[in-house]
Amino acid sequence: MARLDFWYEFASSYSYLAAMCVAPLAEAAGVELRWRPFLLGPIFAAQGWRDSPFNLYPAKGRYMWRDMQRICAARGLAVQMPPGFPQNSLLAARLALAAPEEKRPEFSRAVFHAEFGQGKLISEETVLAEILANLGLPAAEMLAKAKSDPIRALLREETENAQRIGLFGAPTFVTVDSEIFWGDDRLEQALAWAKNTGNP
Amino acid sequence: MARLDFWYEFASSYSYLAAMCVAPLAEAAGVELRWRPFLLGPIFAAQGWRDSPFNLYPAKGRYMWRDMQRICAARGLAVQMPPGFPQNSLLAARLALAAPEEKRPEFSRAVFHAEFGQGKLISEETVLAEILANLGLPAAEMLAKAKSDPIRALLREETENAQRIGLFGAPTFVTVDSEIFWGDDRLEQALAWAKNTGNP
Repeated sequence: MARLDFWYEFASSYSYLAAMCVAPLAEAAGVELRWRPFLLGPIFAAQGWRDSPFNLYPAKGRYMWRDMQRICAARGLAVQMPPGFPQNSLLAARLALAAPEEKRPEFSRAVFHAEFGQGKLISEETVLAEILANLGLPAAEMLAKAKSDPIRALLREETENAQRIGLFGAPTFVTVDSEIFWGDDRLEQALAWAKNTGNP
Repeated sequence: MARLDFWYEFASSYSYLAAMCVAPLAEAAGVELRWRPFLLGPIFAAQGWRDSPFNLYPAKGRYMWRDMQRICAARGLAVQMPPGFPQNSLLAARLALAAPEEKRPEFSRAVFHAEFGQGKLISEETVLAEILANLGLPAAEMLAKAKSDPIRALLREETENAQRIGLFGAPTFVTVDSEIFWGDDRLEQALAWAKNTGNP
């Protein structure tokens, strides 16, 4: 089966857009998805950014929010600016890796919806614990696992993998033949490429 | 008639993509286009960049060229990296403003094609003179006009206009009700918005 890696960052607004529509589009295209959370912070830091480019470049930041509002309206998605951007996504990303793999998409969508659909703080354990509980996952146990050394190491490793293959933003889609497609607006192209190049 | 401003920079690779397809798409949508060349250099400089972000951030630069190759292949557009990026687009932009308005789209497409389709140096007067001649324009006279004070001032003014309304990249599409759409990949959304919001 054709496959596509979906690299996403919980602090990224455009990752929200992609996360909410990628699963049905991939299914319709017959493409298997791998949900791969990572952190943009270390990648931005390596190129000299200590903040989101949407804060470093205010015109770009203002545009991004307007663009988000228009696209969310067109797609029927809730959109609400979280208090403070970018949010600290470390614990959410660790939890996504700690969660059972079959629950990762649903957990990830719930985090994105809480953050960009409801404006909640995803850095807060109570917000994440509620999401876990709603998904029938044992919150305390999952939070403990998320903070364990193996999960910390796994997220570091995935972030290094992302940097090694040339990722510089999120969301990014990567095919089995290493084609990189950056941005929610490249999702359709990425799926078409994944479909045409076939099996891993 | 509905109207859309098409802001473009001759040094910008994604402006090439938009320039080559915007006219028929706008016509099909019943939207009048205003071709507005400007310079990104001063806008980048104001936010602390002394070079193209595609050079400042090499992973982004590598991605951009691959993305260009894929999109040009899909659209049947020639694509060839010009020697040196970004090219000096000052004279081309002044010429576009100096040209008779009805010739501006054709002139602009010819410049973009020479640069990104054939890899020619658009900073060279001989390259631009050939383009002018092919369009039946008097090259020597046009070049003199392009270097005149009124045209220099007009390009400065347009670049200041672009900065004032919040442009930070190219291509950018701006509707009569001041909605900003950045990037070749937002062209369809921009046209739909322009069409729905109607007359100036």
